[in-house]
Amino acid sequence: MNTSYTSYEYYDYPDWSDSRGATKPPAEVILPCDPTVDDKLFHICISAISLVVMLILIVLARQRNPSHRKGVTDLFSPVNFLNQTQRKGLTAAVFGVLFCELSVVVLSPNPLPFVQDPSFGHRELWKILALFYYPALYYPLLASGTLRSKAAYVLGSLLSWVHLGVLIWQKAECPKTPQIYKFYALFASLPQMAGLVFLSLHYPLLLLKSQKEASTTETSDAAEGLDSSYYKDYVKKILKKIPSKTSTSSTDKPKLSKRLSDTLKAYIYTPEEVFRIPILLAASVLVSFIAIYQMTLLLVSAFVPTLHIVRAGVDEDIAFLLAGFNIHLSDDRAEVVKIVVYYMWCVEVCYLSAMTLSCLISLVMLMRSMVLHRSNLKALYRGGVNDVHSRLKASRPSRSALVCWMGFTSYQAALICIGMVIQTIVFFICLLFAVFLLIIPILHGQNLILFNMLKSTWPYWLTLLSVLVIPHVAAKLAFIKTDAGTRDLDNRSALFLLTYLLFLVNVLVGAFLGAWRLVVTALYNIIHLGRMDISLLNRGAEPFDPGYSCYVQYLRIEVNQSHPVMKAFCWLLLQSVRRDCSAVKKMCDAEEGIQLVGQEKWQARSSSARRARARWLLLLTLVNNPTLVGSRKPFHKPGSEGLVNGTLSHASAAANAAIAAEPSGKDGGKDSETPRPSDTTRPPSKTHLV
Amino acid sequence: MNTSYTSYEYYDYPDWSDSRGATKPPAEVILPCDPTVDDKLFHICISAISLVVMLILIVLARQRNPSHRKGVTDLFSPVNFLNQTQRKGLTAAVFGVLFCELSVVVLSPNPLPFVQDPSFGHRELWKILALFYYPALYYPLLASGTLRSKAAYVLGSLLSWVHLGVLIWQKAECPKTPQIYKFYALFASLPQMAGLVFLSLHYPLLLLKSQKEASTTETSDAAEGLDSSYYKDYVKKILKKIPSKTSTSSTDKPKLSKRLSDTLKAYIYTPEEVFRIPILLAASVLVSFIAIYQMTLLLVSAFVPTLHIVRAGVDEDIAFLLAGFNIHLSDDRAEVVKIVVYYMWCVEVCYLSAMTLSCLISLVMLMRSMVLHRSNLKALYRGGVNDVHSRLKASRPSRSALVCWMGFTSYQAALICIGMVIQTIVFFICLLFAVFLLIIPILHGQNLILFNMLKSTWPYWLTLLSVLVIPHVAAKLAFIKTDAGTRDLDNRSALFLLTYLLFLVNVLVGAFLGAWRLVVTALYNIIHLGRMDISLLNRGAEPFDPGYSCYVQYLRIEVNQSHPVMKAFCWLLLQSVRRDCSAVKKMCDAEEGIQLVGQEKWQARSSSARRARARWLLLLTLVNNPTLVGSRKPFHKPGSEGLVNGTLSHASAAANAAIAAEPSGKDGGKDSETPRPSDTTRPPSKTHLV
Repeated sequence: MNTSYTSYEYYDYPDWSDSRGATKPPAEVILPCDPTVDDKLFHICISAISLVVMLILIVLARQRNPSHRKGVTDLFSPVNFLNQTQRKGLTAAVFGVLFCELSVVVLSPNPLPFVQDPSFGHRELWKILALFYYPALYYPLLASGTLRSKAAYVLGSLLSWVHLGVLIWQKAECPKTPQIYKFYALFASLPQMAGLVFLSLHYPLLLLKSQKEASTTETSDAAEGLDSSYYKDYVKKILKKIPSKTSTSSTDKPKLSKRLSDTLKAYIYTPEEVFRIPILLAASVLVSFIAIYQMTLLLVSAFVPTLHIVRAGVDEDIAFLLAGFNIHLSDDRAEVVKIVVYYMWCVEVCYLSAMTLSCLISLVMLMRSMVLHRSNLKALYRGGVNDVHSRLKASRPSRSALVCWMGFTSYQAALICIGMVIQTIVFFICLLFAVFLLIIPILHGQNLILFNMLKSTWPYWLTLLSVLVIPHVAAKLAFIKTDAGTRDLDNRSALFLLTYLLFLVNVLVGAFLGAWRLVVTALYNIIHLGRMDISLLNRGAEPFDPGYSCYVQYLRIEVNQSHPVMKAFCWLLLQSVRRDCSAVKKMCDAEEGIQLVGQEKWQARSSSARRARARWLLLLTLVNNPTLVGSRKPFHKPGSEGLVNGTLSHASAAANAAIAAEPSGKDGGKDSETPRPSDTTRPPSKTHLV
Repeated sequence: MNTSYTSYEYYDYPDWSDSRGATKPPAEVILPCDPTVDDKLFHICISAISLVVMLILIVLARQRNPSHRKGVTDLFSPVNFLNQTQRKGLTAAVFGVLFCELSVVVLSPNPLPFVQDPSFGHRELWKILALFYYPALYYPLLASGTLRSKAAYVLGSLLSWVHLGVLIWQKAECPKTPQIYKFYALFASLPQMAGLVFLSLHYPLLLLKSQKEASTTETSDAAEGLDSSYYKDYVKKILKKIPSKTSTSSTDKPKLSKRLSDTLKAYIYTPEEVFRIPILLAASVLVSFIAIYQMTLLLVSAFVPTLHIVRAGVDEDIAFLLAGFNIHLSDDRAEVVKIVVYYMWCVEVCYLSAMTLSCLISLVMLMRSMVLHRSNLKALYRGGVNDVHSRLKASRPSRSALVCWMGFTSYQAALICIGMVIQTIVFFICLLFAVFLLIIPILHGQNLILFNMLKSTWPYWLTLLSVLVIPHVAAKLAFIKTDAGTRDLDNRSALFLLTYLLFLVNVLVGAFLGAWRLVVTALYNIIHLGRMDISLLNRGAEPFDPGYSCYVQYLRIEVNQSHPVMKAFCWLLLQSVRRDCSAVKKMCDAEEGIQLVGQEKWQARSSSARRARARWLLLLTLVNNPTLVGSRKPFHKPGSEGLVNGTLSHASAAANAAIAAEPSGKDGGKDSETPRPSDTTRPPSKTHLV
């Protein structure tokens, strides 16, 4: 991309001299291109079509459930973001396609295609309107997958084909645009195309699958809903007895190869069988990836072609210009041009390296984030609140937590973009310093400013080195003695004397340490700026980091509302309800199942023995998943929060007693996966010790 | 300070016009001043005197202990930095006086007074030599206090009087110097004078006290050594039964006034009766305070007089100069001068405000550090390793830990200086932006660049506001329902729809969040740059922060070597030894006491019952102070670290069992002060649950 030359009319230099040889680019003028499918016309048509599709979908939904309004409600909430087993691909693809439109909206001169050439004053308004228009435009693509009817799949396929076809047609007809860089618009639409290709293949596949399923079973809902085997598998896995490994002492250091592979594993996300990331996180990861792509593209195409043009435009007049600033590079004007062109090439190389570095770092950080998301969610499911956040309170949904949950995907994408820009700028400046103060002076043996400075301050550096080395050597040889396996201090008087005598010199070392601290902190924070899953502040100040506290709030809602064990529990409840009243079909929904939990209806129906068994299961579940307690209803007295805690401590104490009474068997092997609540929620109760 | 005007000859503007009125300073030329006591002569004399004093002290020490070389060794290790009960004032004062010399060495044209007018090439070398000369020069002041003889106190008094007298004489004769700012040298030597005043009052006081003590008791060592009641008091305090407060539920929110007073207490250091900070920390705090003073002085005197001179030098030519840069302020040249002078006054006000802010922040941070030092040390004494550092390993003295311990005081001072410089620069830039883009435009109603920008992008801000408000309102009104004391989600379909529709707009909010995150992180880290006791990186990356890891290493050595309980234990040991063989006087030393711990000598002598009692005490001590385990010798097999842990777990299990068997009484009330080891070092052992 960076080897192709381009220029706009206003950058044309018609009087280039021939002395620069290779750097002369061919002048190219990009004519305005009007595609056969005009953008305005297309958007009027497609929005009308989308509206019609939505109306057809509503009619279809009403036909399927004439009495119940469930189908229509489903249509207006196409994705259940709190369900881990839904079609992640479909949702993530629509989010990806939508995110690609953002760059169009932000950069394009006419953000809303209905309004051609808006005046400047109103463009901002159109932009904001466009931010609401595009989600609505792509809405039918998401809604078609919800209804689980063949007609809806056909409509979804048709709609995605139309979107894809028109996009490819437009880009094939007009690959070059005058905007930013001639191929920018083409490259920027690639992820959008990929998303639409996925959708236009996914809908026909769903159609085929539903055809097949219709011939075998009646209820295709089961595979994706609460009945999915995922929740059952999850519960089975945490209840499974884990073979205890040969216990290695904690003081043993692991081998280097082991540590290396551990580090690699922490940065490479490998899917696990019995763990699925939430749907909003999956969408967020895809959107983040597209954000990295779009930012890289924008950073390359915004500056590199301009640098090329400027470099190509350097002629012998530059010598006069430089002389005006008292810079004298050479007597020969042709040589001055050569030197300037060479320096500009260096700047370009620095810029591209900085950008590549920033892009790679963002990708690595994205992978690392995914690993951390998983381990955080797992820890929270197990009730290990302190692993994630030191001050995380009860995980009930609060107002701000809900707002953070809603915006999480967008915030993550925005943070990655900002992080990449800042990373590129900082790395660019660092590389420029390195190239122009280190590499070029070494290569050409002149302008050794840095080296001259080092040379003139050599006593300082020598002292620094000796003050760093002397205490280390002295500590090793004289001050630390190893006696019978225990290290202890020796020669204390000499140690105190040296401490006093080195006091002033150590201030110099301290200045060095301070500079190092500044560099390390700045670099670490710049590299991790795009990550919401770690705090940029220290442990005491974590709540002040808006990104991290937003992430923690997001996790709170996610864990509170879609805990796999809770889902499995709801499924169990529904199973028993179904068994009791299999005629009542409409009750088979997760949310209604949750609402059932507190009701006495089910309890009244079950016999005393069954109730005891159910209570035992509930107890066990709560003890092993303390985060679930937050979502329980305090049924003793409404409004009193103290009672919930009271219930928990009562329950866990009873469960502890029960576990103690039944040490072997299924429950005994759980503690490696699910720590007892005493580890995390409260100190070991005194009753055990007394 | 900032209202006095000064100028050097080369800044003299003889042709000032009278139009500026009040800003015209009187021209003042500082003549080179030769004090009666020439610096070179004084330093030759004083170093000779110091040498003589040292020789006399050595002779005195040999006379007191002719057979034993202990006295001379004491002289060469005047401060036992690992003793909390020594004279902190003396040591801290000498460190403070020494630190004041650093600014002289760094800034003075002739750093070593013996060498007048060194050539430029050698000045660096002399500077480094001076860094070693001054600690040696002030060494006798420290050593005189060690010998605890009247003659030594007399010598110390004389020496400090000479130092103080000459310093005051020199400054009184030559208060003005041409260096930086006319009174800079005078102000810079104020803390040095204060330190010397303290020393010259402290030594006579010591002399008087020793006179008194000689008339009453023989051993004056007792008050300051291991026999000091401090360690016994400390142990008594942690073993004391604490009256259990009325237990408040953790869900209860504390009152605002309570929280405010807690916050204030966290920033104001109030001495506690039974806790003394280590001597190195005390010196570090004083040195840090002097560093803040010196940096403030340097920052004021380096720039404010220059700004005054430049402001005074503005004349009507400035209009032509500005016109050269295409800046047209006014048609009237006198008015241009007025405007420029006003702007420069604004710059000066910004600079002074930034500097004051930075100075105040540094002082607050210093206070906060002291509070945190104490709580960290207390936590470490109690074995609460995780409170301080998440990955702190066994607290045995290692090489790097020892080096960090030696340099801690200097590093802290250097970090504070760097922190203040960076804070001043950043605050200055921020204030400049605020004044020239906000305040002046508002006051004068012109150049409203920022406001025009805000005005032109109002749709963005309006959208941002509404996107921030809408979800909050929706969450409050529609999405969260409080039912029977439990908050839960409601209207899920609408929530999911809103989440999808706001996706693109939320990216804008995300950009705002990212910017906010950047500002908060940068500001927080800049404010806390000078503090070593908190990490600037997040909890996972704490070891990468050189300042914080150095502090943690320092704490390791401090806790390992001067744990009050260990000292009290050594004292107990020595007591019993003394009782057994009261003739052997020379064994009454802390270090020899420590060396006694592992020896069988003492154990062999004691009867079986006493041994059992001693073991019980040891066990109890170890259980309540797990950090002490690191300094125990593994007496089963040398070199095996696993055994130490084995011993600990065995010991703590036994102790737990013992505590369980004896629930009431003295040990029962301890757990509020000393958490059981199971809280911090390992998960509760399974045996209690089964």
